[in-house]
Amino acid sequence: MGPHPAVAAIRLAVRRVLHDILNDHGRISTDTPHERPPSPLVLVACSGGADSMALASALAFEAPKLGIRAGGITVDHGLQPGSDLRAAEVVLRLRELGLDPVESTAVSVGREGGPEAAARDARYAALDAAAGRHGATAILLGHTRDDQAETVLLGLARGSGIRSLSGMASVSGADGRYRRPFLELDRQTARRACMVQSLAVWDDPHNADPAYTRSRLRHEGLPALEKALGKGVVEALARTAQLSRDDADALDAWAGQAEASVRDAAGLLECAKLYALPPAVRRRILRRAAIEAGAPAGSLFARHIEEVDRLITGWRGQGVINLPGKVVAQRQGGRLVIRQG
Amino acid sequence: MGPHPAVAAIRLAVRRVLHDILNDHGRISTDTPHERPPSPLVLVACSGGADSMALASALAFEAPKLGIRAGGITVDHGLQPGSDLRAAEVVLRLRELGLDPVESTAVSVGREGGPEAAARDARYAALDAAAGRHGATAILLGHTRDDQAETVLLGLARGSGIRSLSGMASVSGADGRYRRPFLELDRQTARRACMVQSLAVWDDPHNADPAYTRSRLRHEGLPALEKALGKGVVEALARTAQLSRDDADALDAWAGQAEASVRDAAGLLECAKLYALPPAVRRRILRRAAIEAGAPAGSLFARHIEEVDRLITGWRGQGVINLPGKVVAQRQGGRLVIRQG
Repeated sequence: MGPHPAVAAIRLAVRRVLHDILNDHGRISTDTPHERPPSPLVLVACSGGADSMALASALAFEAPKLGIRAGGITVDHGLQPGSDLRAAEVVLRLRELGLDPVESTAVSVGREGGPEAAARDARYAALDAAAGRHGATAILLGHTRDDQAETVLLGLARGSGIRSLSGMASVSGADGRYRRPFLELDRQTARRACMVQSLAVWDDPHNADPAYTRSRLRHEGLPALEKALGKGVVEALARTAQLSRDDADALDAWAGQAEASVRDAAGLLECAKLYALPPAVRRRILRRAAIEAGAPAGSLFARHIEEVDRLITGWRGQGVINLPGKVVAQRQGGRLVIRQG
Repeated sequence: MGPHPAVAAIRLAVRRVLHDILNDHGRISTDTPHERPPSPLVLVACSGGADSMALASALAFEAPKLGIRAGGITVDHGLQPGSDLRAAEVVLRLRELGLDPVESTAVSVGREGGPEAAARDARYAALDAAAGRHGATAILLGHTRDDQAETVLLGLARGSGIRSLSGMASVSGADGRYRRPFLELDRQTARRACMVQSLAVWDDPHNADPAYTRSRLRHEGLPALEKALGKGVVEALARTAQLSRDDADALDAWAGQAEASVRDAAGLLECAKLYALPPAVRRRILRRAAIEAGAPAGSLFARHIEEVDRLITGWRGQGVINLPGKVVAQRQGGRLVIRQG
C-alpha cells in the first residue's frame, strides 16, 4: 500500500523540484568538467506551520534517494514572547525528520514598508545568509496555491498592472536559489499530509489576526469571493499569476529592445518614435527611463506614467511633470527629457 | 451657482465622449469633403436604472450644445411580467428629458451561454438594429467603474489570462459604435445625480437576485474584498482593466507579426522557431492556430494551449492532442500540425 494521497502529492511536488535543482546544478558544473560536483545541499525554510512542516517531511523523504543532502532553517522573528523557544522546538522537529544541518537564526525586524514587508525582508536576508554559510544550492519555501491566490489579490488591490498580478515565482532569488514546490498544491493537502504523518504543526496567531491584510483576505475576502464566484477561484487566481508573469516578461523584453530604437544619437527619447509604439510598450519604456533617472520604483504609480505619456500622446504645451525622487519629465523640441531636477 | 457636483461629473463625462464622437465623425466625413456631414445622432441605451437614467439626462443636456441629436432606446427583455409596461414608462421618461427619437424594442432571450450572456446577446443585437434603423453614429452605455470592477473579477474567476481581465472597453463594437462615458465614474455618483435631478429610477430586481453571479459579487464578494483590502479596490480593478487591455493588445499584435516568421514555405509552424519565442507570444500563436483550425474560442482554455505548448517545450514523443471542436494538434518532423481531425 502506497502513502496517503496527500503525502504522495507533497512528495511528488518536492521530487520534481529536486530533479530541476539537480539538472540546474549539473548544468553549472559542466563549466568545470574535471571536478565532480559535491553532493548538493538543499535547505527547507520552516516556520513550524503545516505548509513548511509538510515540505520539510517531503524533503527529508525524497532528498536521500537523489543523493541530495537536506537541511532546515527556521527564522526567529522575535515578534512574540517565547519566539526563541518556539524556534528551538522547530529545530528539534526538523532534526527528528532526519534533516542535517538544522539551525535557528534570529533576526530583528524593522519597520520599513509595514510589518509584513519588514518581516519578509528580514527573513529573506537571514535565509540568504544561511544559504551562504552552509553552501546550500537551494532553499525550498512552503508557499501554496492559496498563498499565491492571496498574493494575486494583494497585487490586484494595488492596481498597478500585470506585473503585480504575477504573484510569486516558482523559481526566484540569486541563481534561482528559492524554489516553491507547493505553488500548485492547496493548503488543505499540506495540512492533511502533516496530519496523516502525525507531524505536530504550529498555527501562527498572526495568520488569524485581522490586523493583517493577508489574514483578512484569507479568512474573509477570499471565502466571500469563492461564495460569489465558485470554488475554482483560488485555482483561477494562481493560473492568472503564471499567465501574467509570462506576459509581463515578454512585454519587458519588448520594451528593452524597443528602447534603443527610440533614442536619438544623443541618447534622448524621440517623441515621434515613442508615439508609434503600442501604449503598453511605450509606458514601460517611460517607466524604465524614470527609474533610470532616479525615481524609486515603489513610488512610481501608473498615474505618474500616464501623465508623462500625455506629453507624447496629448501634447498641448504642458510644463514640467514632477515624479517621485525629484525626477522631472518634460518635452523639449520633440524629445522627452527625464532627469533628476 | 453651478450644478450639483454629481450632475457636473456626469455631464463632463458625457461631454468628453461627445467631443470624441464629433472628432471621429468629422474624420470620417473628410473622405467626402464636398458633402456637409449631417448632424449626428447619438442614442442612449436606457434600462430605466440609475446609471442609464443619469446618462440619458446628461446626454439630453449636452448634445444640443454640440449640435448633436440625442435619442434613446430601451430594450424589453420580456423576462418579467409587465416588462412591456415598464419599457413604455422608460420611453415616457426619456421623452420628458427631451430625447428624440425614443423607442422601446422587444427581444426574445435565448438560453445560449447562460441567462446573463443570452440577455446580453439579445440586447446588443437589438441595439445594433436600432442604430441601423435610425442611422445613429453612436450608442452610449451606462456601465460604471463599479460594473467594470465586477467584470474584472468575473474574468479573474475564469483564470484565462489578461484578456479576460481587461473588462469592458470605453469604445467597442463596429466602427466604435458603443461608448461607455461612465467607465471611470462610480455608481454612487450616477445615483446621486438622479436624486438631485429628481429623476425616478427603477431598480431591476435581477441586480439583487443572488441567483446571478454578478449580483452575488456586487452585494457580497466585492464588499468583503473592500473590507479586507480597503476602499480603493474598485478603482484598482478598473485601472487593472485598462492596463491589461493595453498589454493584451500589444501581445496580440506581436503574436500576429511573429506568426508569419515561424511558418515554413508550406505554411506549417516550425517547432524550433516557436521554441525561440517568449512563452507569452508562442502560446498566443498556438491559440490563434487552434481557433483558425476550427476550435471554438470560448471552449479553448489555458490548459489546452499548455498541452499543445509541451509539444514544443517538452517534446518526448507525445501523441495527438485533442482540442475542442474536434481539432487535433500533433508534432511531425519538427513541424506542428493543427487541424480538424
